[in-house]
Amino acid sequence: MNKSPVVQSVEKANAEYVASFGEKGKLPLPPSCRFSVLTCMDARMDPAKFAGLSEGDAHVIRNAGGRASDDAIRSLVISYKLLGTKEFFVIHHTDCGMVLFNNQIMGDLLSKSLEQAVVDENGWRDVGQGPGSPEGAKIDWLTFTDDRQAVIDDVKKIRNHPLIPRSIPVYGYLYDVRSGKLEEIKEATEIGKAA
Amino acid sequence: MNKSPVVQSVEKANAEYVASFGEKGKLPLPPSCRFSVLTCMDARMDPAKFAGLSEGDAHVIRNAGGRASDDAIRSLVISYKLLGTKEFFVIHHTDCGMVLFNNQIMGDLLSKSLEQAVVDENGWRDVGQGPGSPEGAKIDWLTFTDDRQAVIDDVKKIRNHPLIPRSIPVYGYLYDVRSGKLEEIKEATEIGKAA
Repeated sequence: MNKSPVVQSVEKANAEYVASFGEKGKLPLPPSCRFSVLTCMDARMDPAKFAGLSEGDAHVIRNAGGRASDDAIRSLVISYKLLGTKEFFVIHHTDCGMVLFNNQIMGDLLSKSLEQAVVDENGWRDVGQGPGSPEGAKIDWLTFTDDRQAVIDDVKKIRNHPLIPRSIPVYGYLYDVRSGKLEEIKEATEIGKAA
Repeated sequence: MNKSPVVQSVEKANAEYVASFGEKGKLPLPPSCRFSVLTCMDARMDPAKFAGLSEGDAHVIRNAGGRASDDAIRSLVISYKLLGTKEFFVIHHTDCGMVLFNNQIMGDLLSKSLEQAVVDENGWRDVGQGPGSPEGAKIDWLTFTDDRQAVIDDVKKIRNHPLIPRSIPVYGYLYDVRSGKLEEIKEATEIGKAA
């Protein structure tokens, strides 16, 4: 089977990375800077670049919205309990796709077609004609309407989770995709402070 | 409140990133290379570096193990349905922490203490003396024993999910933390091929 242009590009870039890998093969498993970052999957964000991380420094957990989902909390608990991290950052961002829809819209779109939908001033509509699935209506897509409030909500959820020790501070930030700047959401960091 | 050395370091690195941000503020929301990567939170892995991604290129989803959890699938569905990605990579890695424990061990450790545990030739033991929680025994931690099989299992789970279109190829890879090299797991890619 011929490889797609995307696969060829990834494999070529990887070969270049391997050629200059150097001493990174000796890095230990636990993160040397002892912290974890929970952030969005958004393509415009590169946590290593915007937060100054080198290989080996910190755990990076990413999902749609950077939400404190049960799975993100699973990852955070493994991070501190078994691998020694001691501080958590929750970093959402401006212009997030999660404000553009809600559970009703997503359930409706997926029930009509699994193919891509597009959005314009009249809302979302399906482009494809493929079959849909009722399964989308059963999922909580974890959308939000206010990016700052979502940071506060997620820091609060982590702070109050029974498996997260009070000794770990949880910081809240909003990343501005127009400037690259991390803005601390002080209300979130205050809620997330260690005790 | 004084900021921790970790927070100061992240904010300093971010200020440097902002100073050289350039034209990246004009990037659109949908990923320009139209693919998504699901990989592990492991600190030693930098997907942008090992796969050659620039800001704006691709969605990156990360959790403990790079598992195809329900939350990872939530993110993948949002990625293709609303933001136009057309190929998925599942990338696990060698020397993953997820082979070092299982649900029984994690439940027991968390029931005794929420503080850090350490592992040696005698197994895991708690270092701290803090209170524990029974909640850890209720969670599926998504551990595995064979890193190649886990890639196959996760590609298969995505391929067979009712909300993932058959038109999207799902590729399986194992990243070698000693060399930085991506090895295609052909059995996984074969299972994940588009139809």
